[in-house]
Amino acid sequence: MKNPQAAGAATAPSADEIGVAAPVKDDLCAAEAKLTRLLDSNEALISEICHYLVDGAGKRLRPLFILLVYRACGGVSEKVADAIDAAIALELIHSATLLHDDIIDGGLLRRGKPSAFARWGFAPSLVAGDFLFCRAFELCGRFDERLVRTAAQACIQLTEGEVMEGRMRHNAAASHEDYLAVITRKTASLFAAGGKVAADLAGADAKTIAAMEKLGLAVGRAFQMVDDLLDILGPEAKIGKPVGSDLRGGIISLPVVLAIEHHPEFAREFRAGTPIEGAAFDRAIALMREPSLIARGRALAADQMRVAHGLLAGLRPSPYRASLAALIDEQSDREV
Amino acid sequence: MKNPQAAGAATAPSADEIGVAAPVKDDLCAAEAKLTRLLDSNEALISEICHYLVDGAGKRLRPLFILLVYRACGGVSEKVADAIDAAIALELIHSATLLHDDIIDGGLLRRGKPSAFARWGFAPSLVAGDFLFCRAFELCGRFDERLVRTAAQACIQLTEGEVMEGRMRHNAAASHEDYLAVITRKTASLFAAGGKVAADLAGADAKTIAAMEKLGLAVGRAFQMVDDLLDILGPEAKIGKPVGSDLRGGIISLPVVLAIEHHPEFAREFRAGTPIEGAAFDRAIALMREPSLIARGRALAADQMRVAHGLLAGLRPSPYRASLAALIDEQSDREV
Repeated sequence: MKNPQAAGAATAPSADEIGVAAPVKDDLCAAEAKLTRLLDSNEALISEICHYLVDGAGKRLRPLFILLVYRACGGVSEKVADAIDAAIALELIHSATLLHDDIIDGGLLRRGKPSAFARWGFAPSLVAGDFLFCRAFELCGRFDERLVRTAAQACIQLTEGEVMEGRMRHNAAASHEDYLAVITRKTASLFAAGGKVAADLAGADAKTIAAMEKLGLAVGRAFQMVDDLLDILGPEAKIGKPVGSDLRGGIISLPVVLAIEHHPEFAREFRAGTPIEGAAFDRAIALMREPSLIARGRALAADQMRVAHGLLAGLRPSPYRASLAALIDEQSDREV
Repeated sequence: MKNPQAAGAATAPSADEIGVAAPVKDDLCAAEAKLTRLLDSNEALISEICHYLVDGAGKRLRPLFILLVYRACGGVSEKVADAIDAAIALELIHSATLLHDDIIDGGLLRRGKPSAFARWGFAPSLVAGDFLFCRAFELCGRFDERLVRTAAQACIQLTEGEVMEGRMRHNAAASHEDYLAVITRKTASLFAAGGKVAADLAGADAKTIAAMEKLGLAVGRAFQMVDDLLDILGPEAKIGKPVGSDLRGGIISLPVVLAIEHHPEFAREFRAGTPIEGAAFDRAIALMREPSLIARGRALAADQMRVAHGLLAGLRPSPYRASLAALIDEQSDREV
């Protein structure tokens, strides 16, 4: 689902990651340098865990999104330091949740290497996550009340999404609405906060701020849906963790919800509440990989991308808007 | 170590808890009502855990301290809502750390009943802790940058203190300085932040703000030292958890550091790195309860209280200052 606007713009970057980031490359570099510094703690163990997780790893999708929205909404260079801080804060929050999620899910692989939880155990990972949360709010301190509240409320939604996901584990009655509610809280809320804050910092009007919040919601949902599809499509080398982790954890991912809907035998197996292993696991993965189900999953992600492109259309054309369009399209390219 | 100022003031409250709180009773009630509301989440499980931990439990020592400092520094009723919010934020942060500490230490009893960790397990307790942190920062959003930063930096110190405590576990070479560094970060930093923020909100001058930060440090240290003594003196019914928890966890508490210093056989046992149980545990407790060691521990706590009283002397006499003096003295009464 390529967007003609992006493809047509004179400065349209190629859909590869560096290309998409090109218009905000300097801002991203500044963010990266400051982010790295903020990982340092008086306690060497905390620094070590945070650098291990964050340095040179991760797509920096949230900072990229925030910086592009800031510029696409007319944000000026004189005040870009604010947008950079917001970008860093959200990446810190995201990193904190990765540390805590791996503890909760017993995740042993993260970004293609042993998770912090696997390497240092749960206590250091837990505390390092708390440290990253606090660093984010230390950075947020300089913003207006509404921006700090937006960030804090996104974090609250993250925690609620985590609990809802746990509540829905092995629930074969889980609906699309349930699924959407989980990913909205667990993933999209942080993108939505990013879009809102970035537009606000850029001095955009209320209507644009609301649109950029919705853009974040749609981008975050599309991103999570594609991530869910990749979880069963793999391969492990590409996704940096074992194929089918969501299924093993009983998590109602997009392919799980689709398979529940179309295959009563899958629903029975999923409902049992025990980890699906061995031959049953292979059978379940095969069902979830059925071309018609994958196509349905892709179509749902494409719906979100269409919403996102529609919201972008309200912005003035610019290299930044073109990059946002390319960033959206990249999501559909990720799983081919 | 009663303070004559406190005893002499016409409105001096008795040293029991209600008495000390009397001058800020209405503010505390307002804080309590709002605190209770902030424990509510869209996820019933989070609400349940937070209410279970916080409602009607805990001494509310941090809110009481902040509200008394605010008033003692001349804070007016018109702006007390700010001090109330700061008081609530610090109690939320404190509660979050209790949830995470119990996970890390495997604490099964808290405030005389099963801990949240014992009742709901580690994942819900972890997420509920994150929720409380976020709620605190949501509330802090309305404050100036320096206040938000003060709160965030106190939280960072809490995490660093937690890691340092872990690093020093079963370390028979731990010195008094190490011990002081751990409790300063783990406990006193939050009181110090409270004192600083409260004085700042009251409109005090820089010198008074610095003094109230130091007051928080001294009160926090005294409080932790007395808590450490109570941990081995018990009884369980009074302290709400098993006697000798610190020793079992290999934590360098005040009695542990004193026993290491005076009893080589204790140091050997402690250094072994395995939980001290059975007859060895009884022997260790007996050593730590030696009257001379307890007296030494009390004297160290009294040193901190003396520092605190000295700092109070710089404030204008008032019922609030008298209550702060009584609150300090209460610490020494707690273990008789």
